[in-house]
Amino acid sequence: MKSTKKPWIFTAKCPSILGTVDVVTRYMAESGNYVSEIHSFDDYESDQFFIRIEFIPNGDAFSEDVFAADFQARADEFNMEWALTPPDHKPRVAILVSKYDHCLNDLLYRYRTGQLNIEVPVIISNHPDLKDLADWHGIPYYHLPISAETKPQQEAQVKELIEKYDAELVVLARYMQVLSPDMCQYLDGKAINIHHSLLPGFKGARPYHQAWEKGVKMVGATAHYVNNDLDEGPIIAQGIQTVDHAHYPEDLVAKGQDVERVTLFNAVKYHVEKRVFLNGSRTVVFGR
Amino acid sequence: MKSTKKPWIFTAKCPSILGTVDVVTRYMAESGNYVSEIHSFDDYESDQFFIRIEFIPNGDAFSEDVFAADFQARADEFNMEWALTPPDHKPRVAILVSKYDHCLNDLLYRYRTGQLNIEVPVIISNHPDLKDLADWHGIPYYHLPISAETKPQQEAQVKELIEKYDAELVVLARYMQVLSPDMCQYLDGKAINIHHSLLPGFKGARPYHQAWEKGVKMVGATAHYVNNDLDEGPIIAQGIQTVDHAHYPEDLVAKGQDVERVTLFNAVKYHVEKRVFLNGSRTVVFGR
Amino acid sequence: MKSTKKPWIFTAKCPSILGTVDVVTRYMAESGNYVSEIHSFDDYESDQFFIRIEFIPNGDAFSEDVFAADFQARADEFNMEWALTPPDHKPRVAILVSKYDHCLNDLLYRYRTGQLNIEVPVIISNHPDLKDLADWHGIPYYHLPISAETKPQQEAQVKELIEKYDAELVVLARYMQVLSPDMCQYLDGKAINIHHSLLPGFKGARPYHQAWEKGVKMVGATAHYVNNDLDEGPIIAQGIQTVDHAHYPEDLVAKGQDVERVTLFNAVKYHVEKRVFLNGSRTVVFGR
Amino acid sequence: MKSTKKPWIFTAKCPSILGTVDVVTRYMAESGNYVSEIHSFDDYESDQFFIRIEFIPNGDAFSEDVFAADFQARADEFNMEWALTPPDHKPRVAILVSKYDHCLNDLLYRYRTGQLNIEVPVIISNHPDLKDLADWHGIPYYHLPISAETKPQQEAQVKELIEKYDAELVVLARYMQVLSPDMCQYLDGKAINIHHSLLPGFKGARPYHQAWEKGVKMVGATAHYVNNDLDEGPIIAQGIQTVDHAHYPEDLVAKGQDVERVTLFNAVKYHVEKRVFLNGSRTVVFGR
Repeated sequence: MKSTKKPWIFTAKCPSILGTVDVVTRYMAESGNYVSEIHSFDDYESDQFFIRIEFIPNGDAFSEDVFAADFQARADEFNMEWALTPPDHKPRVAILVSKYDHCLNDLLYRYRTGQLNIEVPVIISNHPDLKDLADWHGIPYYHLPISAETKPQQEAQVKELIEKYDAELVVLARYMQVLSPDMCQYLDGKAINIHHSLLPGFKGARPYHQAWEKGVKMVGATAHYVNNDLDEGPIIAQGIQTVDHAHYPEDLVAKGQDVERVTLFNAVKYHVEKRVFLNGSRTVVFGR
Repeated sequence: MKSTKKPWIFTAKCPSILGTVDVVTRYMAESGNYVSEIHSFDDYESDQFFIRIEFIPNGDAFSEDVFAADFQARADEFNMEWALTPPDHKPRVAILVSKYDHCLNDLLYRYRTGQLNIEVPVIISNHPDLKDLADWHGIPYYHLPISAETKPQQEAQVKELIEKYDAELVVLARYMQVLSPDMCQYLDGKAINIHHSLLPGFKGARPYHQAWEKGVKMVGATAHYVNNDLDEGPIIAQGIQTVDHAHYPEDLVAKGQDVERVTLFNAVKYHVEKRVFLNGSRTVVFGR
Repeated sequence: MKSTKKPWIFTAKCPSILGTVDVVTRYMAESGNYVSEIHSFDDYESDQFFIRIEFIPNGDAFSEDVFAADFQARADEFNMEWALTPPDHKPRVAILVSKYDHCLNDLLYRYRTGQLNIEVPVIISNHPDLKDLADWHGIPYYHLPISAETKPQQEAQVKELIEKYDAELVVLARYMQVLSPDMCQYLDGKAINIHHSLLPGFKGARPYHQAWEKGVKMVGATAHYVNNDLDEGPIIAQGIQTVDHAHYPEDLVAKGQDVERVTLFNAVKYHVEKRVFLNGSRTVVFGR
Repeated sequence: MKSTKKPWIFTAKCPSILGTVDVVTRYMAESGNYVSEIHSFDDYESDQFFIRIEFIPNGDAFSEDVFAADFQARADEFNMEWALTPPDHKPRVAILVSKYDHCLNDLLYRYRTGQLNIEVPVIISNHPDLKDLADWHGIPYYHLPISAETKPQQEAQVKELIEKYDAELVVLARYMQVLSPDMCQYLDGKAINIHHSLLPGFKGARPYHQAWEKGVKMVGATAHYVNNDLDEGPIIAQGIQTVDHAHYPEDLVAKGQDVERVTLFNAVKYHVEKRVFLNGSRTVVFGR
């Protein structure tokens, strides 16, 4: 049914067992919440169940607290972790960049036009170059230079800013710095990085040059969660483009920008729409 | 949970209303049937609800009759049309061809190797050319020539064969004949055709030549249900390929074969796996 | 050979006949110009020959006039139309827009970063909305409202601006106005439009809505030269995206923006790099 | 110009220097051979020049010997290696398989229908399973079992058959054996292998399982020349498909078959049409 109301999002995860779908959908029906979209996945390798539901609440008086009070007992029977996201929730996203602006420009465009339902309270960079772009969007821009010696201090400053601006997600939009183990630990599961290769191929530096050396006919990009093993975090989205012998490394760098920004955008969108679930070292993504 | 048992498929359709998901999933849980996969769609334009569930039945004694006896009353409250498909069901598929063999060859390969879980009891053609291929697969081949004068009789013979061989689906695998309105009527909803263009563009004859005349940079193929308006039946699947100025019409014909056969295969697979629902003049396809 | 010098571009077109390649490459070799890239196409349907060469000129003293004086006699023997484009040539491109900014934003980003080697001396719109974006890039923005009554005057103003700013190419970046036959005539061959469908399918208004009605599984965009038959000019580039039953018309509009802007960018890039040739109602595009 | 005659193919390779294109096209024009298609690439990293021309010979009396006698002196000035391929040349291709038949079935279909302009004089396998398929196509099938102990003898038998049947190309169509260094050496540059990953990612055994472990969102296939470093030979073609969390390793194996066979077909077609040139550890491929 078409509704003038925007849907809430319900997400949950629990061990696989008979009745996992039913416990959710029965509660929705009994409480008069109209399910407009449902995705679920029952992973028989990890024996985990994942579900995401969009629903139109029953009446104007819908209350998260009442939902929780009613549903928690049922969830407990299934050891189910669950969450509700209201339609007006806009995650606060801090963006880290260096000099390349194609990902930043793309994210800010989609933020400005509402394609990405987020707030961007702060942009942080180890270079001053992209301040103008931040300024035009009215977003505070912090230039925090970094060197081998100042790395711990700089990372501490970055953490402070993330906390000061209360960011629930950090996006590394071509932030060309190897994070310290401490920083990786800190960002574990709350940061998305874009790597310019089809990970796990061509990890590390200059992946397009590596790809060119190998004479590949396709190059790509990978958006993944940061974890403590750099370039090895759970993959959220990947994109590719075909190339041929006439593409030198610098052509790959140039051509790759379109794939990188679309792949990063997709991952961020999936994340903020609560479509991504961690499943061990892999992800479950209920895409559209 | 991983099971050694193959899943049954439950499909249903009803008007959109609160509780449509719940009525199904609750019954599954209450009857001990383990839901391993679920897709649903609530179309707020047509106000119709569609659902497809794979489930592992409760115990070895699962009975379709008991399921029906129990569930029908619940379904009636929702005006729900529903169906069960057992894991060992192999739809009987009659294939109609002319001289081009790329679609037939592909379907038979996937039938032979089990990628398509079907029986092919009969192949019918207005030309004798593809008899060898049918013979090698051990499938009866009927050569029924057709002319403007003999069209009614030929179509009557085709109908007889479809019934004699008890085919529940007919696939027009590049059958190069314009069906009569009667025949379209007869096949309505039970036949899949492959048209070598991105319908509704380039309807009718020689679509690749039409596409070349227009200088398009992409050509494609469309698999759709036959209905009484030729080349206008509900679309199930489409595929494309890029082309350039150096592709003459005969190149498009040759290159198009790969897209045609994959697109037709996808549509047939979706159909036999009960992933396709009619939704007015459009379809709902729960793909993988 | 790698050169520190940027290549010149030579393009030509003539009737098909023995020696068309030779007359060009022989002159290049004899005059010491190093051919670094060559594309040609001999269309046996239209009996026309097309060639595009990138070459590193012989020495610093390379002169267009000397080239012309030497080569013209050879070209005449083949009725060859030809042109030279120096590496520092930046075509002046006027952009027309309405309210949608995704194509404009993309073109300006690529202009600003040098991915598009152009000048943008003027942006013209029938709405005031996108002035801020133009301002930030330092480009004059003219708001010329239009109504049925004022159409002739408005189009005259547009023409004046195109001429005042000496634009050699006009890009209709989602300019939502039906041009008059006069205006089409004026822009014939010197303007590129983006239409949000896979032309010639879904011509005219609201193509995404038309596509949704037909239940297509793929939608796309077409960049084409403007000619006197609106939505029927020679196609330069097309792009597609897959969609499914869960995409309502408004989803197609939103999702389509990425394909539209990339398709338009590709067409503009091909044009300014002299990769596009008119071949009757079709084009020859020497892509990369 | 349209010709009733089929084109000859001229291919050549030499160091980059002024006049490389001219030396070829001038000879073509002077000898009255009509150039209908030309591709070239001047690699400024390796300083090598590659060219492929299709031409309609001058008159019926065209002679390879006369061409050679005339052209060789010009070629020598450029240290150019060159070759002529007549339109009626059908390379003899030996196919090696194990138990998977999807690549074999595809190659034989395209061979039978003329999409691949080749002869297949022999099929060799370490298993008896695919004899029926070979029989139906009337091709001798040799079952040569292999074990760790008999590997040298089996490989010797394979070599003997390749020579007995005078194969100029060997295709490993999912031949599931690690070749000995000797055998790799023997097949260096004259054999094409299909690996079921996007090399150099996921080298070695069970690449789909490796890919699943890493949670990738795209898997692919790579066709490459065999050289002495297994899974590292020069890449000719790659293909991909998108996957998601619901694809278990066995699904990847099943889905991958379509990409594998198309990728292998493309590579074989490029090779037999003389579109592939070795360029160090990479390739130049003049695709269509």
